[in-house]
Amino acid sequence: MSPKITTELLKQLRQVMKSPKYVQEPVQAYIVPSGDAHQSEYIAPCDCRRAFISGFDGSAGTAIVTEQHAAMWTDGRYFLQAAHQMDNNWTLMKMGLKDTPTQEDWLVSVLPEGSKVGVDPFIIPADQWKRMSKALRSAGHDLVPVKENLIDTIWTDCPQRPCKPLIMLDLSYTGVSWRDKIVALRSKMAERKVLWFVVTALDEVAWLFNLRGSDVEYNPVFFAYAVIGMNTIRLFIDGDRMMDPAVREHLQLDSTLEPEFKIQVMPYGSILSELQAVGAGLSPKEKVWLSDKASYALTEAIPKAYRYLTPYTPICIAKAVKNASETEGMRRAHIKDAVALCELFNWLEKEVVPKGTVTEIIAADKAEEFRSQQKDFVELSFATISSTGPNGAIIHYKPVPETNRTLSVNEIYLLDSGAQYKDGTTDVTRTMHFGTPSAYEKECFTYVLKGHIAVSAAIFPNGTKGHLLDSFARSALWDCGLDYLHGTGHGVGSFLNVHEGPCGISYKTFADEPLEAGMIVSDEPGYYEDGSFGIRIENVVLVIPAETKYNFKNRGSLTFEPLTLVPIQTKMIDVNLLTQKECNWVNDYHQKCREVIGAELERQGRREALRWLIQETEPLIRVQ
Amino acid sequence: MSPKITTELLKQLRQVMKSPKYVQEPVQAYIVPSGDAHQSEYIAPCDCRRAFISGFDGSAGTAIVTEQHAAMWTDGRYFLQAAHQMDNNWTLMKMGLKDTPTQEDWLVSVLPEGSKVGVDPFIIPADQWKRMSKALRSAGHDLVPVKENLIDTIWTDCPQRPCKPLIMLDLSYTGVSWRDKIVALRSKMAERKVLWFVVTALDEVAWLFNLRGSDVEYNPVFFAYAVIGMNTIRLFIDGDRMMDPAVREHLQLDSTLEPEFKIQVMPYGSILSELQAVGAGLSPKEKVWLSDKASYALTEAIPKAYRYLTPYTPICIAKAVKNASETEGMRRAHIKDAVALCELFNWLEKEVVPKGTVTEIIAADKAEEFRSQQKDFVELSFATISSTGPNGAIIHYKPVPETNRTLSVNEIYLLDSGAQYKDGTTDVTRTMHFGTPSAYEKECFTYVLKGHIAVSAAIFPNGTKGHLLDSFARSALWDCGLDYLHGTGHGVGSFLNVHEGPCGISYKTFADEPLEAGMIVSDEPGYYEDGSFGIRIENVVLVIPAETKYNFKNRGSLTFEPLTLVPIQTKMIDVNLLTQKECNWVNDYHQKCREVIGAELERQGRREALRWLIQETEPLIRVQ
Repeated sequence: MSPKITTELLKQLRQVMKSPKYVQEPVQAYIVPSGDAHQSEYIAPCDCRRAFISGFDGSAGTAIVTEQHAAMWTDGRYFLQAAHQMDNNWTLMKMGLKDTPTQEDWLVSVLPEGSKVGVDPFIIPADQWKRMSKALRSAGHDLVPVKENLIDTIWTDCPQRPCKPLIMLDLSYTGVSWRDKIVALRSKMAERKVLWFVVTALDEVAWLFNLRGSDVEYNPVFFAYAVIGMNTIRLFIDGDRMMDPAVREHLQLDSTLEPEFKIQVMPYGSILSELQAVGAGLSPKEKVWLSDKASYALTEAIPKAYRYLTPYTPICIAKAVKNASETEGMRRAHIKDAVALCELFNWLEKEVVPKGTVTEIIAADKAEEFRSQQKDFVELSFATISSTGPNGAIIHYKPVPETNRTLSVNEIYLLDSGAQYKDGTTDVTRTMHFGTPSAYEKECFTYVLKGHIAVSAAIFPNGTKGHLLDSFARSALWDCGLDYLHGTGHGVGSFLNVHEGPCGISYKTFADEPLEAGMIVSDEPGYYEDGSFGIRIENVVLVIPAETKYNFKNRGSLTFEPLTLVPIQTKMIDVNLLTQKECNWVNDYHQKCREVIGAELERQGRREALRWLIQETEPLIRVQ
Repeated sequence: MSPKITTELLKQLRQVMKSPKYVQEPVQAYIVPSGDAHQSEYIAPCDCRRAFISGFDGSAGTAIVTEQHAAMWTDGRYFLQAAHQMDNNWTLMKMGLKDTPTQEDWLVSVLPEGSKVGVDPFIIPADQWKRMSKALRSAGHDLVPVKENLIDTIWTDCPQRPCKPLIMLDLSYTGVSWRDKIVALRSKMAERKVLWFVVTALDEVAWLFNLRGSDVEYNPVFFAYAVIGMNTIRLFIDGDRMMDPAVREHLQLDSTLEPEFKIQVMPYGSILSELQAVGAGLSPKEKVWLSDKASYALTEAIPKAYRYLTPYTPICIAKAVKNASETEGMRRAHIKDAVALCELFNWLEKEVVPKGTVTEIIAADKAEEFRSQQKDFVELSFATISSTGPNGAIIHYKPVPETNRTLSVNEIYLLDSGAQYKDGTTDVTRTMHFGTPSAYEKECFTYVLKGHIAVSAAIFPNGTKGHLLDSFARSALWDCGLDYLHGTGHGVGSFLNVHEGPCGISYKTFADEPLEAGMIVSDEPGYYEDGSFGIRIENVVLVIPAETKYNFKNRGSLTFEPLTLVPIQTKMIDVNLLTQKECNWVNDYHQKCREVIGAELERQGRREALRWLIQETEPLIRVQ
């Protein structure tokens, strides 16, 4: 992977930063955030402005360009990747390390007195605007909205915004109709005494209307906004997608409906002016509910006194707690996904060992091929991380021809992959050795496994926030001086984004909502040694009630049930580092893999994969 | 304990809330926070306004009185105590429970439209003012500063503000002179480009000048402020304390000094006007550094553009990391404290069992008596929690004649106590049974012990914040559905406040600073069964570097060394619930108690206590 040469691009950007054609006054710095106008984590090619200007195309990062400097903030998952993808014009700012300045502090340290810092108001979330604007103002600078996106002005071959057909989900998948979701949302609005709710996140629009799309790769969403009033529903969406009779039928656009369920379809681009009109028509005490992560542009459309901002919207919270139909769908999806992976690992073991002809890309493609054979497969849920040896230490690695390595019996292989099925979203990581792992590799793998089990088997009170569980995943690593520089888990959508809020498991102190039965998160501790190998063990787990001996304050307890049912390679385990309880956990888990996935492999007539499964799920025996 | 009758007081308060003599416009609600003008946790009698108006005298709580309601917010430590101490005029708001409204939400729900909410601007911290003011404003109400404290206007027999003599600490105790502390502070100020630093917390003033006082019971502090410029030092303090030649000598008030170390002594009450003068004289880019917890009144004295606010001051952070002299002092203090407790427990065992004549108060007094026999004893570090049976479930219980219970062989006894010695501050909890504990009591005790050990023996990377360790203390309790409703640990001062920032171990997401070698915190998980018993095991522990097998990213690791060396009652332990590692921890700990405390008991000729120590530190044997 050679870095993108950005000298000329930066020169052009610095020119438009001073050009009266685009800015009222010259800006001395320009911020290029990661997201799109919906603050999406994964974005469409037309929104990959940060990657365009810097070359760094990881899923998280913020670029800031000043007259003299170009700097990129990203987190531990991407330190190596960003360093590889960016040329010498760029300084990498490693977030989470003690000496790394915040964007604000850095700007204050490099800007000349009284500078203007520009940003696209549609791209920056309102809460970030507020924080940054305040910090800059207190140092004598100004954050200013630049209406025209300056990257777009120099991006001559910028791709078109996608506008793909929609997928309708019926009740058997969603469990709740869009009308009932609107009713529930309005009741939350009434509770908080707000009259309007603005849906800005793409997955929230999709969830609310029981629709899916494919405007963004891996995320089954479509570009749209919605504004829900107590008696009105406005959907802002482009293209001829609303001409599809099935979509019209699904949304009952042509039916005689009670007026409060009549959906008004409006152009995507009219959201700002419509919202400004809503804002202008408000009487005192009438409030509009927005996420505090909605864009600065949309937030500003509502006068401050009328805004009701929360970190998580009622849709975000409702969406996170999966109902019975969604949970059953997720179970089905994970069974199919495990079948595909058993096929893959069986195939790899046969191909890799004798022939040495399988590269990371071939393995990733093969994984996709096996997944695509399963019912209701739609697409992958993220770019497959297929990495062997040193590539495994690049936490969010994606194999490309320049880095593509051949799998061998001498290196650890890490596969983090998942798919979108119509009934659910999967995300699983397994770390395998096809030869003989070293004692050190086994030791590290076993610590990671101990952390994985510590979270998966944890019992904790109702109302506990996920971040309180993060250290359980690290304790075994910490004991011998090891650690990993990423969170332990993220929420997972139901045929929706593979990363979703409002819950998660992380050492970062973020305002996660308490875990509730029905929520689904990943459990994925790891260990990475730069230049050598990467280890990660990831299951998607469902929050379920736990039976306990006592019940303090009648609060009830929760624990996790693994939805992912793919064998964990026992060859990599140093059994003597496990406690008896941990050993039993592995054996019980493998027994369940045998039963559930075994039956499905049998049903699908996949005999070889079944043989592989049986062999990989032999019980561990602890000699002590 | 019978509740305080507050009907008449509330009537009077509601009158002054409308009286033009005290308020420009009537206030519909009046907030009575817990703290004093220095945001102290422990306060002088003249500052106990919340206790005066409500009867509830726990260390944490906020009262709000409206025309119709009177409500008290407090945390899990105080639910029972507050319920006992307050009459029917008061509603208890249990913080931390899901359905308890915040003060802001509650105010919005009960106030008539366009209300004014009053508060003493010297008592409310600026960050709380900001949050509350914003929430009220967005609901159409106003938070207003009421200059005269309304409680003081109805508190006819309010005690005088204390003004006791000062204690000087020489270098053998502090390790660093006040001059060197000023130099270090000015270098931090230069780093942040601030010209002035305002010292508002009483323990920060005391630490900075190597002085101690006794204006507040248990906390060796004195009423004072300081304002440090790059070339000036102003100390705001009252009384004839500055006439003491030893104090003058210590502060070099009469020496020919470089002007930047010359201390100007000013009246305590002149801080506001002096600070306003500083604020008025600032040029652009000149900043004044204040804690964001400083009072609203002092914060407002500095125009907004000139304020530099941080959650923790450089003094708070420097004070938390104990130097070698302080650490050695803390060790000495804990050895003396353990000697006193060995004497006490030996005495209790002899008195309680045969005679049944020892009450909670007698036991507490006896503990103080034994402590006061030790060298450099100054006073207790907090009100002794001496509680038996059901009283043990009142987390911050203090025995009074109405509740005083006799210790018996049938109940669990919990003693949480500590002292101020000139060389250090102690805080230790032991839970004992003088008869035969039930299997259930032993089970609960053992879970608490497992939690205590999990924290004490934890190894974690440099830079880890204490809140990431909190769940380790709960895991064994959680496994069987139990928990406790308080944090796990707090910072401990060096002959200073027994609770100090900026570090701690808590499930609450607060902005604690990372743990560093030299910091000192408590480790005190518990379990409480309302109406039956309370269990808590508390040591004060020192953060020390840990040796680990590997060293990820060269970060280094930390662990804890117990400074408290008092036997943990083995009779209460169900050995079979311990792992071998935990069992070894207990045995190693008891071995150290024998060696270190045994030698000191020997030296002090305390033979009986030594016999008791030896008997209590017999190694556990795990049969499995």
